[in-house]
Amino acid sequence: MAAVGIIMGSTSDLPIMKEAALILDHFGVEYELEVVSAHRTPERMVEYAKNASERGIQVIIAGAGGAAHLPGMTASLTPLPVIGVPIKSSNSIDGWDSILSILQMPNGIPVATVALNAAKNAGILAARIIGASQADVQKKMLAYAEEMKQDVLSKAKNLSID
Amino acid sequence: MAAVGIIMGSTSDLPIMKEAALILDHFGVEYELEVVSAHRTPERMVEYAKNASERGIQVIIAGAGGAAHLPGMTASLTPLPVIGVPIKSSNSIDGWDSILSILQMPNGIPVATVALNAAKNAGILAARIIGASQADVQKKMLAYAEEMKQDVLSKAKNLSID
Amino acid sequence: MAAVGIIMGSTSDLPIMKEAALILDHFGVEYELEVVSAHRTPERMVEYAKNASERGIQVIIAGAGGAAHLPGMTASLTPLPVIGVPIKSSNSIDGWDSILSILQMPNGIPVATVALNAAKNAGILAARIIGASQADVQKKMLAYAEEMKQDVLSKAKNLSID
Amino acid sequence: MAAVGIIMGSTSDLPIMKEAALILDHFGVEYELEVVSAHRTPERMVEYAKNASERGIQVIIAGAGGAAHLPGMTASLTPLPVIGVPIKSSNSIDGWDSILSILQMPNGIPVATVALNAAKNAGILAARIIGASQADVQKKMLAYAEEMKQDVLSKAKNLSID
Amino acid sequence: MAAVGIIMGSTSDLPIMKEAALILDHFGVEYELEVVSAHRTPERMVEYAKNASERGIQVIIAGAGGAAHLPGMTASLTPLPVIGVPIKSSNSIDGWDSILSILQMPNGIPVATVALNAAKNAGILAARIIGASQADVQKKMLAYAEEMKQDVLSKAKNLSID
Amino acid sequence: MAAVGIIMGSTSDLPIMKEAALILDHFGVEYELEVVSAHRTPERMVEYAKNASERGIQVIIAGAGGAAHLPGMTASLTPLPVIGVPIKSSNSIDGWDSILSILQMPNGIPVATVALNAAKNAGILAARIIGASQADVQKKMLAYAEEMKQDVLSKAKNLSID
Amino acid sequence: MAAVGIIMGSTSDLPIMKEAALILDHFGVEYELEVVSAHRTPERMVEYAKNASERGIQVIIAGAGGAAHLPGMTASLTPLPVIGVPIKSSNSIDGWDSILSILQMPNGIPVATVALNAAKNAGILAARIIGASQADVQKKMLAYAEEMKQDVLSKAKNLSID
Amino acid sequence: MAAVGIIMGSTSDLPIMKEAALILDHFGVEYELEVVSAHRTPERMVEYAKNASERGIQVIIAGAGGAAHLPGMTASLTPLPVIGVPIKSSNSIDGWDSILSILQMPNGIPVATVALNAAKNAGILAARIIGASQADVQKKMLAYAEEMKQDVLSKAKNLSID
Repeated sequence: MAAVGIIMGSTSDLPIMKEAALILDHFGVEYELEVVSAHRTPERMVEYAKNASERGIQVIIAGAGGAAHLPGMTASLTPLPVIGVPIKSSNSIDGWDSILSILQMPNGIPVATVALNAAKNAGILAARIIGASQADVQKKMLAYAEEMKQDVLSKAKNLSID
Repeated sequence: MAAVGIIMGSTSDLPIMKEAALILDHFGVEYELEVVSAHRTPERMVEYAKNASERGIQVIIAGAGGAAHLPGMTASLTPLPVIGVPIKSSNSIDGWDSILSILQMPNGIPVATVALNAAKNAGILAARIIGASQADVQKKMLAYAEEMKQDVLSKAKNLSID
Repeated sequence: MAAVGIIMGSTSDLPIMKEAALILDHFGVEYELEVVSAHRTPERMVEYAKNASERGIQVIIAGAGGAAHLPGMTASLTPLPVIGVPIKSSNSIDGWDSILSILQMPNGIPVATVALNAAKNAGILAARIIGASQADVQKKMLAYAEEMKQDVLSKAKNLSID
Repeated sequence: MAAVGIIMGSTSDLPIMKEAALILDHFGVEYELEVVSAHRTPERMVEYAKNASERGIQVIIAGAGGAAHLPGMTASLTPLPVIGVPIKSSNSIDGWDSILSILQMPNGIPVATVALNAAKNAGILAARIIGASQADVQKKMLAYAEEMKQDVLSKAKNLSID
Repeated sequence: MAAVGIIMGSTSDLPIMKEAALILDHFGVEYELEVVSAHRTPERMVEYAKNASERGIQVIIAGAGGAAHLPGMTASLTPLPVIGVPIKSSNSIDGWDSILSILQMPNGIPVATVALNAAKNAGILAARIIGASQADVQKKMLAYAEEMKQDVLSKAKNLSID
Repeated sequence: MAAVGIIMGSTSDLPIMKEAALILDHFGVEYELEVVSAHRTPERMVEYAKNASERGIQVIIAGAGGAAHLPGMTASLTPLPVIGVPIKSSNSIDGWDSILSILQMPNGIPVATVALNAAKNAGILAARIIGASQADVQKKMLAYAEEMKQDVLSKAKNLSID
Repeated sequence: MAAVGIIMGSTSDLPIMKEAALILDHFGVEYELEVVSAHRTPERMVEYAKNASERGIQVIIAGAGGAAHLPGMTASLTPLPVIGVPIKSSNSIDGWDSILSILQMPNGIPVATVALNAAKNAGILAARIIGASQADVQKKMLAYAEEMKQDVLSKAKNLSID
Repeated sequence: MAAVGIIMGSTSDLPIMKEAALILDHFGVEYELEVVSAHRTPERMVEYAKNASERGIQVIIAGAGGAAHLPGMTASLTPLPVIGVPIKSSNSIDGWDSILSILQMPNGIPVATVALNAAKNAGILAARIIGASQADVQKKMLAYAEEMKQDVLSKAKNLSID
């Protein structure tokens, strides 16, 4: 049963959003991956968000570009934590539009916003949230941090500039 | 019967949004004025937007601040033209957040965005839209332009700098 | 007889602005397509804007880049609704210049601004405006929304990340 | 035992950050509230972040202004989810500095960023995270959403513009 | 006979624009001061700009806020140099809108843009332009620079910090 | 004898700055073209700016990128009108740095700023300034405007979208 | 003999720039405090910068607002390290103009830029530079860091939200 | 023994950061070049920064992109002057994120920020700092400035536009 619901406004967002899925695989967290468009399928979005908790979803990751309403609207329809991934789409204004549309939510309905195009970090954040109550996932997070550290240490010194 | 539906995310937007109502009074266009919150009453928003056309509404004006999803979400649920008013709220980032959240809609679902806090212009735009098929309203628009012109001309020359 | 006048500052804007024409074809709304430069043919612009209503035009779509004065100046010379399309031209500053030049109109003369380069959305907005008083066009708008929805639904689930 | 650790760079951030504490009280989630400065007490920050999980903390909320390093550095030292609150301090550049310093974390170390000064939303997000594994907290979140909805509905219609 | 035409979009711009007049008095350059609104009196603007050169005007200073079209439109209707003064008006977005609307003119029609609200500098620039062909004005410009220098030198050293 | 001095911070600016020279050729205005670096040859800059007027120069065009000090520093050393051309160089931040460094001069020392990379417009502005006192140059400016107009008119109607 | 030269474009910058002086007093580093205007006294600036090293100055701190050329021009005329303080002056565009004018120096002539209005930090940076070769100053810097730490620790825990 | 420590967040920063090393070679200043990641090796960062002064390092150059915490955190752990190089990385928002994360440090802990990607200037600034107490390095700085000047002068005049 999926613990994380990964949704995106369009299949064109898949190349970025699949990074969330890949890293959740790494942490052994199950997920589902669907297209839910706030603007083209608003009623599907309402249904998805309202039922997610009952279906066992614990965290929702929502990615969208431009005037990105999917993460915030989803957050308004679920008691679950929603992670928003701003996506820099083609006619975006350097990504500012999706960042601000996701980040600047009014009081009462937060979205946990990550960096521009940072679906991988959204996946890691979802795993940290799951890990807050599941010791095995948190343990993997500690191991992941250790790997990153060792990777840096292995090449940290005496860099060559030739 | 109201021809224009004016909606806003919160009563705190009323001091700005009532300017739309006042100018529609000037043009003799009937309107209704309600609070419809995308984030706190998402289902009311869906219902409002889906029924507006059948109730005789011809244009919707939607104002919201911050991550402003009301205009775009409403546009996704109605075939009517939706005018968006970005509002500079207290923790807004100089209004950029509401402007971009309203303006940068994806292909397929346009929002007619006006300037920051420009509810009056939203009302005038609604009247222009009504006037495109109602000669009397268009005639009032011409008169309104003439008044603005005369107002400028009456004080245009020989300005005093004392 | 054209119901929508599509004008642009330069033929170099045609690749973007023709999207408005193509989508109006889809909705069966007649249009005309012309170059009207605010800066190089200011008098032609005055004449075009002042006569549009009498010629039967109901909506004007005006696209321009950089310091984009065509949409706002046109709006000051006609009682019709004017839709502005900000265009990201070569020496534009990420499109901010054309967005702000079109959006931030003073009280009294609104421009219905759409997203950067969003001529397609300008066409849809024009059709929504026409549809506010013509049931057949509004009906096509509902069908168009339904098509978009079905398109999303057909590929929404079980996305592959391989 | 505190489930949420609320930390901030300076006591001058308390008027904003206490909103997180107050809303956690509302949800019956225990918390601790401390000053941990990334730049003035870097070693205290290392110690705090490294030990938080073992002390039973499940979520950390970190607020900071300007070049805001506290949320990101804390996230690099703990496997817990870290929520970052950008604070608009006196010589801040409209808050852009704290937003970008917190939001734009590199791959591997996410921070769940909320809106500018939105400590209240940070508290709600923490409660949602706790609620993902504790049914009683999630139930309170649903009730909270219902209250917000009723509050809007009670004043939504027939607004007066007098 | 006026050598410089100072025009502005509204009498509300007078407190800023009169600085141009005052400094032209200092340089003994004659000017006229009028309200010419691009959006409310577009035909007056056309007339003013087309006739300015024949009436003996050598430089036009045009100030406007928001989507500021007056300087650029005037430049498109006259062979004279046009100086644009971006004005930070009430609902302006920190002045960016008026700066970009004036500065980013397309090839063929330049506007000599000065700093935000810098009507005084616009007056000095007009005097420099007049002075390029009138030795007495240029001489006064040299004296003005000398005065500024002496003013700085008189208080430059041994500043007190008590 | 050169009436216009075109200076730039580096030979790498030549591809852009030569547009000023080419258009001055069109207007029959003589010019000189030199590299004067504010930062690498500050004393040459002082000398160039202080002597320009005596050598018969009537207008200086200065182009520079990044923290662009050449136009403003030149203006502080000459009574002549100085036109600044912001150049978008490689590590520029979208050109904002050069625009603001040139535009936002303090009271007393104006720079006539043109659009990003708009050396051609700088040349036209210089010709307009010369033309303010030389009827033949102004006449050419009117002819130039007429040519631009005819160019637009020749292709303005019945655009093909095939 | 002064080791640090603190210069500013105008006496109006003194309320901010004196913070550099006060903190240098704290570190026992001698300084001089003068007005040197890049635009109003360019030759004084050249002289000041060229002679500073010979007079025993080891670090220059230069503060300026708007199109801030003083730090960069000074750096081009001295082999000393120059610290630039961007000042948010009245008609500044939120300080972006002074930040970018100081920060974005071309290759070859660096300016050590500190935060907006951060003259105090400029003084501390100057003391760190002096301290790099003077053990007593560096020792005071360590003590200063210790004081800041103790100040935080004394009020870090058990914050009251009443 | 190295006088300058050059550190960077990742080996992917090496192509930019090595410019600092190359120019320090030019000035005969010894350096070391290492990867120290604030987020992946926070404890290594603490250790590096705390020991640098004792190991004889006089200046630290730290480069990082995105939410760039390395320069500021290093500065909080050492009494040495720290030069920060903002790096425009792939998902950066035009470099604004790294600039603001490095520049906008709070009172007490300055970072000497240079332009975006300007590692070469960071190296020159380090040499200027060393040169403030070592006459031979300062002499080389004067020679370097002279070379830049001669390079400009050799190609400054009579530029060809063919």
